Amino acid sequence: MRIAILLFDRFTALDAVGPYEVLSRLPDTEVVFVGRDRGTVRTEGGGLGLVADATLDEVSRPDVVVPGGPGQSEHMSDGPLHRWLRAVDETTVRTTAVCTGSLILAAAGILTGRTATSHWLALDQLSALGVSPSGERVVVDGKYVTAAGVSSGIDMALALAGELVGEDTAQRVQLGIEYDPRPPYDAGAPDKAPAEIVAALRQRSRFPRSRAV
Amino acid sequence: MRIAILLFDRFTALDAVGPYEVLSRLPDTEVVFVGRDRGTVRTEGGGLGLVADATLDEVSRPDVVVPGGPGQSEHMSDGPLHRWLRAVDETTVRTTAVCTGSLILAAAGILTGRTATSHWLALDQLSALGVSPSGERVVVDGKYVTAAGVSSGIDMALALAGELVGEDTAQRVQLGIEYDPRPPYDAGAPDKAPAEIVAALRQRSRFPRSRAV
Repeated sequence: MRIAILLFDRFTALDAVGPYEVLSRLPDTEVVFVGRDRGTVRTEGGGLGLVADATLDEVSRPDVVVPGGPGQSEHMSDGPLHRWLRAVDETTVRTTAVCTGSLILAAAGILTGRTATSHWLALDQLSALGVSPSGERVVVDGKYVTAAGVSSGIDMALALAGELVGEDTAQRVQLGIEYDPRPPYDAGAPDKAPAEIVAALRQRSRFPRSRAV
Repeated sequence: MRIAILLFDRFTALDAVGPYEVLSRLPDTEVVFVGRDRGTVRTEGGGLGLVADATLDEVSRPDVVVPGGPGQSEHMSDGPLHRWLRAVDETTVRTTAVCTGSLILAAAGILTGRTATSHWLALDQLSALGVSPSGERVVVDGKYVTAAGVSSGIDMALALAGELVGEDTAQRVQLGIEYDPRPPYDAGAPDKAPAEIVAALRQRSRFPRSRAV
């Protein structure tokens, strides 16, 4: 199994690295970070550079993980990235996205008529792109698997691992990364966080017109 | 606040990027990835390169996050890294580690007589280094904060955020990264995973002499 994780300028680090940490531990699986060019790609804020080890066209018939992040908004028009996504999607076993990465897949026409999720602030952007939004943390529709915001890529990747290589291996990976989460607060979803925090994040987001969730 | 996240060859990606994703979102906080040299540092397995943007000595008076990973075993002897850790520890607000990063801090003499945690497979290595091991997911002993295996760095960083800048901000970050975890399996700790999976991981680990947990 070969999995390409897409990097683009101003992606969100954990969107990409959460799935990497799980998927890179699967047997007979190669995970490759790909970008328009080889070399360093910077996260939102610029504080971290990850290395794209291959260009889009250098990886043959991969499965794909598309992360999100503020840079997503630069990739909503047709062009080489969308053409690459549509081309690899023809042969993927799974085509996946984390956070606002699903908006890129949707804009490329890959999710049309399907159900998907995204960051809670971006859910109704999916509707505008012809995709049925779901508030679930991980959404599976055929071979298309999407995860909610940022940290949800870990849950998505473990679910994928279970489907692709079996529950035993998925549980082995979960124990290996000691994924027994204990958030110190219960504020990780808009229906759990204090209303003023939800409102503040919405006001600061790049999706201000989104409906209240 | 300035926070240095240490990179070394064959570190574990999520150990470093989990805390980064939380801490880089705190107000007035600069997070810098540091290494012995500037440039690309490869994770265990080599599948991902992160960029060290500064050498150890180029970051003035930072707080520090030490990740773990297989490369930890190369950093258990006194030398420039231990000297740097001891020097920055003199002025840190918090000195922290994720996973087997705590073994590096312990080997540098920084945790002597204190209580700390580590990856579940490495807990009794702490004892051998004069540190009291704790099976808690996040352990706070004075200004020393340690987290269990790999994914626990996210929980640690949110707890740190709450202490350093307040619960409101920590909850805002948690909602921003939609950290409302839903692991598809309940196998993330050795007392929860099937016994044969625990045994298999222990047998394959680099800590085969550790006691059964």
